[in-house]
Amino acid sequence: MTLPTPWLDIAPDSDFSLYNLPFGIFSHDSEPPGVGVAVGEWIIDMAAAARAGALHLGKVPESVYRESTLNAFMALGRPAVREVRNILQEQLTQPDSALHRVADRVLVRQAAATMHLPVAIGDYTDFYSSLEHATNVGKLFRPENPLLPNWKHLPVAYHGRASSIVVSGTPIHRPNGQTIPAGATNPVFGPSEALDFELELGFLIGKDSAMGIPVSTYEAEEYLFGCVLFNDWSARDIQRWEYQPLGPFLSKNFASSVSPWVVTMDALEDFRVSDPEKNPEPLPYLRTSGALNFDLNLEVAIKADAMETTVCRTNARHLYWNIRQQIAHHTVTGCNLRVGDLLATGTISGPEGSGCLLELTDGGKKQVRLSDGSERIYLQDGDEVIIRGFAERKDARVGFGEVRGAIRPAQSHFAHEEN
Amino acid sequence: MTLPTPWLDIAPDSDFSLYNLPFGIFSHDSEPPGVGVAVGEWIIDMAAAARAGALHLGKVPESVYRESTLNAFMALGRPAVREVRNILQEQLTQPDSALHRVADRVLVRQAAATMHLPVAIGDYTDFYSSLEHATNVGKLFRPENPLLPNWKHLPVAYHGRASSIVVSGTPIHRPNGQTIPAGATNPVFGPSEALDFELELGFLIGKDSAMGIPVSTYEAEEYLFGCVLFNDWSARDIQRWEYQPLGPFLSKNFASSVSPWVVTMDALEDFRVSDPEKNPEPLPYLRTSGALNFDLNLEVAIKADAMETTVCRTNARHLYWNIRQQIAHHTVTGCNLRVGDLLATGTISGPEGSGCLLELTDGGKKQVRLSDGSERIYLQDGDEVIIRGFAERKDARVGFGEVRGAIRPAQSHFAHEEN
Repeated sequence: MTLPTPWLDIAPDSDFSLYNLPFGIFSHDSEPPGVGVAVGEWIIDMAAAARAGALHLGKVPESVYRESTLNAFMALGRPAVREVRNILQEQLTQPDSALHRVADRVLVRQAAATMHLPVAIGDYTDFYSSLEHATNVGKLFRPENPLLPNWKHLPVAYHGRASSIVVSGTPIHRPNGQTIPAGATNPVFGPSEALDFELELGFLIGKDSAMGIPVSTYEAEEYLFGCVLFNDWSARDIQRWEYQPLGPFLSKNFASSVSPWVVTMDALEDFRVSDPEKNPEPLPYLRTSGALNFDLNLEVAIKADAMETTVCRTNARHLYWNIRQQIAHHTVTGCNLRVGDLLATGTISGPEGSGCLLELTDGGKKQVRLSDGSERIYLQDGDEVIIRGFAERKDARVGFGEVRGAIRPAQSHFAHEEN
Repeated sequence: MTLPTPWLDIAPDSDFSLYNLPFGIFSHDSEPPGVGVAVGEWIIDMAAAARAGALHLGKVPESVYRESTLNAFMALGRPAVREVRNILQEQLTQPDSALHRVADRVLVRQAAATMHLPVAIGDYTDFYSSLEHATNVGKLFRPENPLLPNWKHLPVAYHGRASSIVVSGTPIHRPNGQTIPAGATNPVFGPSEALDFELELGFLIGKDSAMGIPVSTYEAEEYLFGCVLFNDWSARDIQRWEYQPLGPFLSKNFASSVSPWVVTMDALEDFRVSDPEKNPEPLPYLRTSGALNFDLNLEVAIKADAMETTVCRTNARHLYWNIRQQIAHHTVTGCNLRVGDLLATGTISGPEGSGCLLELTDGGKKQVRLSDGSERIYLQDGDEVIIRGFAERKDARVGFGEVRGAIRPAQSHFAHEEN
């Protein structure tokens, strides 16, 4: 589908074309946060647009646009979200539209706005769905037998921490924790010396499922609202010491960062590609067919001394387990999903690049060289990590913008010392 | 401290003595849910009591009692909660009190009320803090070396699923899932054949901590509101196949059950006992002194064919890692706590008894005999598991009531078949 030319000036390489229209939570001047839609360099203030009569509200109560999270809007369901997006595409392309008439009151420059965490996240689940990542990491621990026996039979996952998920731009303090020096029997305490990023995508749930009732692969996408870039910061030295037998805990729970704009599933529809063939064939509840992955270009840059170096370029199309399989597996026991839950892919690596320093440095054995001439095994204080992602075809670009976070030194005081 | 005799008739063996006064969410007739306090066989309807002028509200806004969760009340902080409890003790013991005068309007029989999930749970963390449990389970997998090297250096924990935490009395469907038959290389799908309970306590967080700022052991208890009984249902066969390398996921996330009454930390104050000596001494941020465990009698019964059999009696005093250590460890990386978070102890076993069937049957090698003559390795459909707990000294009993859940057969249909 090709849309007419909009009356608003949108750069051809903008992540936020007419074909995208992602949702987020923004504030500007001293206004309280509310729902916005990104288009070009602008944000459509949805509450202001509704107030000005520039939106056919349909079944959408105007109040959802004045909320400080997208949860109430997401809960309206995919058909309502689709209708809103269609109305905006129409309003942005008709020169005599109501939105055009009130544009000076409802368009806010992105540069002048503050973005907030878009969703109140309920439960956060992290999958491990990249075959390349699981194989690369497995090789570091078990060179002869990198993939564990369960990996190709089920989408391995674990529960993560929701409280410490923050929006892009929030500084990340290097965590303190226990680590075990090589050859030692007793741990030591101090700042992590192996702070890493993880390039991931996060899928946001927009519909509750009932406890006790599995969601099949066929209906799984009805439960999705949209997708964000996700950086699941990890302290590899803390992880190595703590993770047996119940999995990662402190090594991951100090922070994760999300991009502020949630790209809707409808905006991704044109970029579907086949997911890798599953061999061995999984159990029936995990079988899918069709184009169920998304052709999304992803890259990671490290910014040090004001210079950016791209350290990874890859694509989400390589993910072994698709989102329908993840949802079907997650709920097959009867575990319920709720609006606001986040399902992340796990680190996305592929034939072209790897999504974390653990892999890029081959487990710390080789350095990554940055443009300023310095080298990294893991992140240093002051480094900023920037993840970007976009889908593209000749007349349409659908981008995520970016998620960034700069590393601050470890804290050395406790809460009671704040007062 | 000994309180005067109350004007309300409270049985000497009631869990809900004047010394307890736990908080919960209840409804009755066609009233919406609200905050209640259990005393003897009764519930004090806190919104009704406030409306009738029977409470000095102090800093408590009356509206918190009309909420359908305790979160807003908990967030008022420990001093406010303490004041409310003190006022209730006074009102319940003074014959001419305002509460006594309006008793017929504000007291609801527990038998006539429906209890609801007391708290909107944010993040749920499950610890692994019983030395006996970790040793018994470890022996099943590694007879020579049951405890992993990290266990005595840090309170091992993992993130659990909050969406599927339900209040006592909610039926539990046996989960379906993947399991691996002995000697097989390919998994099979079907109802779990190793459904287990786990006897735990859950501590509820009543104060936000700041991200990036650790909470020390000294201040940790300021962040607590109270404690519940917790049954962390587990499917051992699903767990065995899925849990490497990232920990338990589906085997635990289909359901956990909590008791409806939250016993405040103040009510537990009189039952403090020393926690076990730590050897080796942990790192400084985990060192504590004083009586930091609680002398709480715990028991588990299985009800089959209308007959109860107690299969475990133990005590929370044996827990190796105390709650202050758990909170200090959880936040040492800067991970933030939020009002409504739940920190569970992990299965509580002790010298007297073990808190799950995995241990009681020695990993499935011996049967547990029930009073009706039947035997169990794991739970059967129709079985009901009842966990009870209480603290006791000569003039005071502080009990948790119970958390119960009955096993229903596995579901065999998907969400779209509901319509």
